[in-house]
Amino acid sequence: MAVQTRSVADVCASAKEASRTLARLDSATRDAALEAIAATLEARLDEILEANAQDVAAGEEAQISSALLDRLRLTPERVAGIARGVLEIAGLRDPVGEVLEGFRLPNGLDVRKVRVPLGVVAVVYESRPNVTIDCTALALKSGNAIVLRGSSMAAHSNAVLAELAREAVAHVGVPTDAVALVAGGGRAELREVATQTGVIDLLIPRGGEALKKALMEYATVPVIYAASGNCHVYVDATADLEKARAIALNAKVQRPGVCNAAESLLVHSDVAADFLPSVMRDLRDAGVELRVDGRARAAAGEAGDSVVDATQEDWATEYLDLILAVKVVDSVDEAIAHVNRYGSGHSEAIVTDSESASRAWIESIDAAVVYVNASTRFTDGGEFGMGAEIGNSTQKLHARGPIGLRELCTYKYVVEGSGQIRA
Amino acid sequence: MAVQTRSVADVCASAKEASRTLARLDSATRDAALEAIAATLEARLDEILEANAQDVAAGEEAQISSALLDRLRLTPERVAGIARGVLEIAGLRDPVGEVLEGFRLPNGLDVRKVRVPLGVVAVVYESRPNVTIDCTALALKSGNAIVLRGSSMAAHSNAVLAELAREAVAHVGVPTDAVALVAGGGRAELREVATQTGVIDLLIPRGGEALKKALMEYATVPVIYAASGNCHVYVDATADLEKARAIALNAKVQRPGVCNAAESLLVHSDVAADFLPSVMRDLRDAGVELRVDGRARAAAGEAGDSVVDATQEDWATEYLDLILAVKVVDSVDEAIAHVNRYGSGHSEAIVTDSESASRAWIESIDAAVVYVNASTRFTDGGEFGMGAEIGNSTQKLHARGPIGLRELCTYKYVVEGSGQIRA
Repeated sequence: MAVQTRSVADVCASAKEASRTLARLDSATRDAALEAIAATLEARLDEILEANAQDVAAGEEAQISSALLDRLRLTPERVAGIARGVLEIAGLRDPVGEVLEGFRLPNGLDVRKVRVPLGVVAVVYESRPNVTIDCTALALKSGNAIVLRGSSMAAHSNAVLAELAREAVAHVGVPTDAVALVAGGGRAELREVATQTGVIDLLIPRGGEALKKALMEYATVPVIYAASGNCHVYVDATADLEKARAIALNAKVQRPGVCNAAESLLVHSDVAADFLPSVMRDLRDAGVELRVDGRARAAAGEAGDSVVDATQEDWATEYLDLILAVKVVDSVDEAIAHVNRYGSGHSEAIVTDSESASRAWIESIDAAVVYVNASTRFTDGGEFGMGAEIGNSTQKLHARGPIGLRELCTYKYVVEGSGQIRA
Repeated sequence: MAVQTRSVADVCASAKEASRTLARLDSATRDAALEAIAATLEARLDEILEANAQDVAAGEEAQISSALLDRLRLTPERVAGIARGVLEIAGLRDPVGEVLEGFRLPNGLDVRKVRVPLGVVAVVYESRPNVTIDCTALALKSGNAIVLRGSSMAAHSNAVLAELAREAVAHVGVPTDAVALVAGGGRAELREVATQTGVIDLLIPRGGEALKKALMEYATVPVIYAASGNCHVYVDATADLEKARAIALNAKVQRPGVCNAAESLLVHSDVAADFLPSVMRDLRDAGVELRVDGRARAAAGEAGDSVVDATQEDWATEYLDLILAVKVVDSVDEAIAHVNRYGSGHSEAIVTDSESASRAWIESIDAAVVYVNASTRFTDGGEFGMGAEIGNSTQKLHARGPIGLRELCTYKYVVEGSGQIRA
């Protein structure tokens, strides 16, 4: 493994240079690079596990939590899974070169709006070393060079994975520097990556609030911030209450630690007394702590015992845990106003049998994904058939919802003429 | 006219509230608002001219340049032209509600990706009062509320125009606060607008470098910066030299002060001696100052007398004036490398009869618009058939090239099911 001694600026500049070549490579060559990476991961499993063992040992020494250790650890099965993921990405449709629209102007100019790679995508991530390969595959598939800045905790694993990927892609004619790992997981390196204006075309942070806050302060390159998700399920007066029960439970407990899990349940007052006693009992049985407003408590009957009073703060909180806020509202409009006020614009579900309520919800909720009669948990690139995602966005510019291959691209206009000049 | 005494935060919050209503209005109502604005402009011409006369008088007193005074001044013809522009925008196709794609997932969920308004668009602009109405029309047509922050120089004109627009839209059922003018044209107000996170969905600065720089420093809301354009015309070895001459002249002199005008001419060495003498003479005759490299000077013959030596700085300069840098290159690849190094990613033209050179140019030039055998001057929302534009973008995220109605929108996913939950 080559020792990484180049500056961050150098590494990024080389990635930019490589991106120019990548932009001209056909998708067969890019797919071959992904296949080469997958094959190398399997062929050189021992090196990977050995490097990973160093990181795990250092983590144990530093007494990091068992959850973190688990995220850090690679096994033969996990590496095989990563390789499989790379092959799946290789099999997706090439997003590059698709003509988004095309038309002929009155003066005879032919205009095409064509999807093209962004150039250089940087990803900043935390402990999981699989991200090194997942993001490399997504970037190369979409014609982008990638700059990786992982956690120092996974330094050995990431170094080996990135180096193997670099060697693999070089074998099929993709520039080595299309995959670049920034040595050192410190704040100084992060800041340097985030200020390579004109070189880094997009930076995606995959980490907690502290990382986001730091980047908001000093990043000068374009950033898409991973979403936080304060998601709601609203049970309308006309809802099928059995479906509502299943959706509320699924949205909360199926995987509470992710951004598309529900954090609040809103219930129309017409059905509160019918619905809340049983759903609250089921939620409690599933280990969910309930924080309820006065009307929900009153409607819940016995299920309202031993629940907590919700505060203003609860409506705005993304618990990412087995906690659910519950509130009774008097109309779909009140539910919409509540969601638009407190939600984070991620995923918002209504359960209803009313066409007008459904339409109001769809038109008025200001969020990346609005659901009618389905769980919020489907907001996911894989579920949406994009094959893979690099994150989820609650921004409104560029990418909203899952960030897949197409969202890692921009477009350019190609205008072909026969000597046209402007009058 | 009501006296504006509300805080910037208040004005923006009301615009946000209004945007919620706007999102639910059909396009017929929004078009009616535009028609009402156009009618009001004509009906209340005297008030507009009177207010404008105050601004012009103050400008004269402050001895602003005659160019600025001209941009500030409204006449009956100009107001009629603004009203016509509003009606033209009303006649454009509604960008809102278009289904960008739609599919059914294996579990039966129907997913649609639908274009929706951003919410609140803020525009910061300089002396020209017509921008007040132009941008209001574009915002309302695309379903957005607008927050306007004009120049103090045009304060009276802008106040009347905004107030008339507010009254006009209210008559057809659009909330008054969908059009908001921030009182005071100072830096403090600008900073306040630029930091209304979660309220302003997009800020578009229409002004010089000082404005951009200030916003880059403190804006926390999403901003699309208007493009600077260091554009090139490259004349390839196989070019039709008569077409090349016409395109080079058009790109430079037809309107030198705009961002899609050419600033550099690159010429392949095979045709330099044939091409440069006549084109440089023509350019000089058109009043263009030429800044040339040694090979261009040598190829130019007599036309090379009295030209200036180009410096490194010239390659990177957007003159916005009758000045052109000229350089001889040995291949299309050298031209591409030069453009990708010095260009601003705006509009880049090749003149060629070679299919391979054209293809290399299209694939390798990293710019919003790449031209083959046409002038760079066509990069414009109107020319592209978008009907109108609010600016041009050299960013790669969200909008690249002309920013028209569709670029003032985002999208949301609408997912409709029958009780689906995630397994």
